[in-house]
Amino acid sequence: MAQVLRIVPLGGLGEIGKNMMAIEYGRNILIIDAGIMFPENDMLGVDFIIPDWQYLRDKKAWVRAIVVTHGHEDHIGALPFLIREIPAPVYATPLTRGLIEVKLKQAKVIEGVTLHTVQAGDRLTIGPFTVELFRVCHSIPDGVGLGITTPAGLIVHTGDFKFDQTPVDGKPTDFATLAEFSKRGVLALLSDSTNADRPGWTPSERVIDPAFDAAFRQAKGRIIVATFASLISRFQQVIQAAVRHGRKVAFAGTSMLENVKIAQKLGYLEIPPGVLIRLDEMDRYPPSQVVILTTGAQGEPSSVLARMAAGQHPQLKIVPGDTVILSAHPIPGNEEMVHRTINRLFQRGADVLYDPIAPVHVSGHASQEELKLMINLVRPQYFIPIHGEIRHLKAHARLAMELGIPAERIFTVENGWVIEFRDGQGRIAERVPGGYVFVDGALIGDIGPEVLREREVLSREGFVVAIVRRDPRTGRIIGRPELITRGFTFAREAEELLAGAEELILETARSANGEGKSRQALAQRIQNALADYLYRHTRRRPMIIPVVTE
Amino acid sequence: MAQVLRIVPLGGLGEIGKNMMAIEYGRNILIIDAGIMFPENDMLGVDFIIPDWQYLRDKKAWVRAIVVTHGHEDHIGALPFLIREIPAPVYATPLTRGLIEVKLKQAKVIEGVTLHTVQAGDRLTIGPFTVELFRVCHSIPDGVGLGITTPAGLIVHTGDFKFDQTPVDGKPTDFATLAEFSKRGVLALLSDSTNADRPGWTPSERVIDPAFDAAFRQAKGRIIVATFASLISRFQQVIQAAVRHGRKVAFAGTSMLENVKIAQKLGYLEIPPGVLIRLDEMDRYPPSQVVILTTGAQGEPSSVLARMAAGQHPQLKIVPGDTVILSAHPIPGNEEMVHRTINRLFQRGADVLYDPIAPVHVSGHASQEELKLMINLVRPQYFIPIHGEIRHLKAHARLAMELGIPAERIFTVENGWVIEFRDGQGRIAERVPGGYVFVDGALIGDIGPEVLREREVLSREGFVVAIVRRDPRTGRIIGRPELITRGFTFAREAEELLAGAEELILETARSANGEGKSRQALAQRIQNALADYLYRHTRRRPMIIPVVTE
Repeated sequence: MAQVLRIVPLGGLGEIGKNMMAIEYGRNILIIDAGIMFPENDMLGVDFIIPDWQYLRDKKAWVRAIVVTHGHEDHIGALPFLIREIPAPVYATPLTRGLIEVKLKQAKVIEGVTLHTVQAGDRLTIGPFTVELFRVCHSIPDGVGLGITTPAGLIVHTGDFKFDQTPVDGKPTDFATLAEFSKRGVLALLSDSTNADRPGWTPSERVIDPAFDAAFRQAKGRIIVATFASLISRFQQVIQAAVRHGRKVAFAGTSMLENVKIAQKLGYLEIPPGVLIRLDEMDRYPPSQVVILTTGAQGEPSSVLARMAAGQHPQLKIVPGDTVILSAHPIPGNEEMVHRTINRLFQRGADVLYDPIAPVHVSGHASQEELKLMINLVRPQYFIPIHGEIRHLKAHARLAMELGIPAERIFTVENGWVIEFRDGQGRIAERVPGGYVFVDGALIGDIGPEVLREREVLSREGFVVAIVRRDPRTGRIIGRPELITRGFTFAREAEELLAGAEELILETARSANGEGKSRQALAQRIQNALADYLYRHTRRRPMIIPVVTE
Repeated sequence: MAQVLRIVPLGGLGEIGKNMMAIEYGRNILIIDAGIMFPENDMLGVDFIIPDWQYLRDKKAWVRAIVVTHGHEDHIGALPFLIREIPAPVYATPLTRGLIEVKLKQAKVIEGVTLHTVQAGDRLTIGPFTVELFRVCHSIPDGVGLGITTPAGLIVHTGDFKFDQTPVDGKPTDFATLAEFSKRGVLALLSDSTNADRPGWTPSERVIDPAFDAAFRQAKGRIIVATFASLISRFQQVIQAAVRHGRKVAFAGTSMLENVKIAQKLGYLEIPPGVLIRLDEMDRYPPSQVVILTTGAQGEPSSVLARMAAGQHPQLKIVPGDTVILSAHPIPGNEEMVHRTINRLFQRGADVLYDPIAPVHVSGHASQEELKLMINLVRPQYFIPIHGEIRHLKAHARLAMELGIPAERIFTVENGWVIEFRDGQGRIAERVPGGYVFVDGALIGDIGPEVLREREVLSREGFVVAIVRRDPRTGRIIGRPELITRGFTFAREAEELLAGAEELILETARSANGEGKSRQALAQRIQNALADYLYRHTRRRPMIIPVVTE
């Protein structure tokens, strides 16, 4: 009897980030990617989120390999956590492998891990799967998609991609292999949905060059370009522009420097001799001959750019005449921080160029016309939109329908919904865990909705702790109650308010003296009375914590 | 000797929101607008922000009038607070006046307030000022700009505007008066900068009609249109589309219903008989004959739409077949909440249309080509960009320079920077207060940066309160320490951690027994030891509050 092919999305379906998928056939599992996601604004205090791979815990022995499509955080960031639990061999192209290596070393999980370097065009045999890697363009070099031949049919997974005809590294997406897959017959296409709500084509990386040239021509002082730490093709473009305009380039920021080193070593970044300078050599050159490449285009408070904007960077000060180019779009949720950084740079006298002021960034993901082209190239029997929030998956599904893929052969599902193929027929099967695992400090997964709800209340209203001591025999309160508040209101304005609260507590304790002798009962009464009192006077509901000691 | 004309921006310069300005000549002050601003994501727990009008407190007697340009919250929202302090007469066009009246009644400050209804085209004499109101298009009807003739010259204040050639109410911006001002000679133009970083022209409101028609044609079930509660011209467009497609219209949401009533009464909204139905009559009609107009296009958790999306609205349930149209753009900072609402609507089976999926919204503010037209129509001697973050003001200033206004005659300033005109010469004078006044619950202004910083720490890390009682004579600790945590970590996972912390506290108290007898000294030692211990074990820094009772 033929076995069942199962596609188990564990991350990236229903969200942007923490991409992860399991392909399962018999007792064989292939994992594709294991990324992290950055928390939304109301996931208070969470550092980042990793996929919930509970599903794999019983099947650890079945995992044959982890294949990684490219080196972005949302595809490799969770590998240290995953590999600690499931030390399967990892397959990745050279640059991706280099970035993974750094990550595993930092997390001290490199020992005993098998890392295989593979190339676009390679064909790997992993258990019952044959995996063919095909080149895709994206906002990092060396990205691949996967053609996975299983006993149940051929699955095509695009990874993250766009159809850039003139990519900076000269390596366009591999149309030929995609067309060849189509000839062989594709059971299911799993395709990147990030930009599925954007009409048209995503512009080529090359459109940035003229915008850089215009900016470099006009800039009288230093040029500071902020972009993503992994956007190596953008570094290349900045270096080329610097050469054209007779400027030296310095990199600022640890993560960017790390990536530059790897990319240069592996041949993904060409820096002509004499162009690169160290940050501390900058002062030897006139401002008009300097470019600084840095991170912080997302307004991250700890980044070099944000610290420059806030006047808090020890070495780098913004001075009038500086031109700052933000060569990145804000990731949704970061808009406010990005705009704040821009405003602060202007305040310090810099000129700031950003989209839409100047076309200094393009997306790395395919827009609608490219997505249609992908579907038409591959002509799959089944279509599964991946990598996107529900709205993106739905928009992508709508495109597929417009191209004639019947609705019942399109599976628009969120993380955890298993898709099964049996005798050539696909269906949505059971749901397995596919939620969030929060990482906060050194603790993983112990921050759940309860703690977040508490933080949410604290963040809006602050708290009041009321401590009273009572005599266990008489039930009388000893001394004055002690009130401690934080995040609620200024102590000096609240003096009168809190004095009233103390009286109220004493009164509540006195009137409760006869009944309910338990500490808990008294604490409850104090809490209720205090909540009422504070709401009446302030229209606010701080968290109230009564403590009755004896 | 001629007196000095002073322009004092108190809100809206350096931010989007809480617009307010004072025009001062001799002992006469004219206030333009008094709006609120919604807090940014990191202004935790703040309800809204009003301008700081400290500057006016010594000069209350000089304030001759408050002139309001239009009825949006960021122009009228702070009036109840302002009028309580400075009960000057208010001048506004009929719809604006109607909206102000509702606001003042709700805040119970209507008594004794003088409200003058004025019309676009009117000429008011207020102290030494002659104020001419001219019609502007914006995303609410009845908006005006102001030509203010002062003894020092003519000042033109655009209010919020766009140059819509085919507005829904048929009343385009008053080009003739602007041109006429130009002939008379304009000392300074103060112009709306909100969209100064957008190239081209803002599309006419009319472009939405075909998008609505397409959506109405395709929709098989109910149509739910979410937009701003004050976007009365959009209501009109929805009603017209409903009539064209044979649907009834019901309004949901208190604020929207209030505005519909006023707009209808004053003739700003035409609803043909038989079209309007009450929400509770909806079930009498097949879904294909119903449109619901509602608020919530910003994802506000308490709005009708967000509650529908979350499945928490008592009457209105989303069902498959519903089409939801989000006829608004997310206000910066709201993107996440808007996208979450869209995703949830999709999850419940609705089809959701939003920009860029369909062109169902246009901005109410002028883009770059319109801003250039405004400057060229008015040809002012001085130019002051208003209403925008610094990046918008700077972009607007750049446009003015491109049109030949010399840089030294452009004043790009933030709130509080006074601009003086003396003998026809303008200059930036002193800085007066122009910051934030936070409103949180019933308390105004008592939430400052300190409290916000505390909330920020609490929101990320939570807190730990450690209570110990010691014998005042022996200095020995009595009983066990009590530890209370919220927002830090789960109690059940933290048991061991907290047991260790208790031991640590006892040890700290013992070792401190000899020295530093004060409660404070012991508390400080406990705090330090606990901070160390918790960071070592969790890599987190919760707020630690030691309490030593005796």
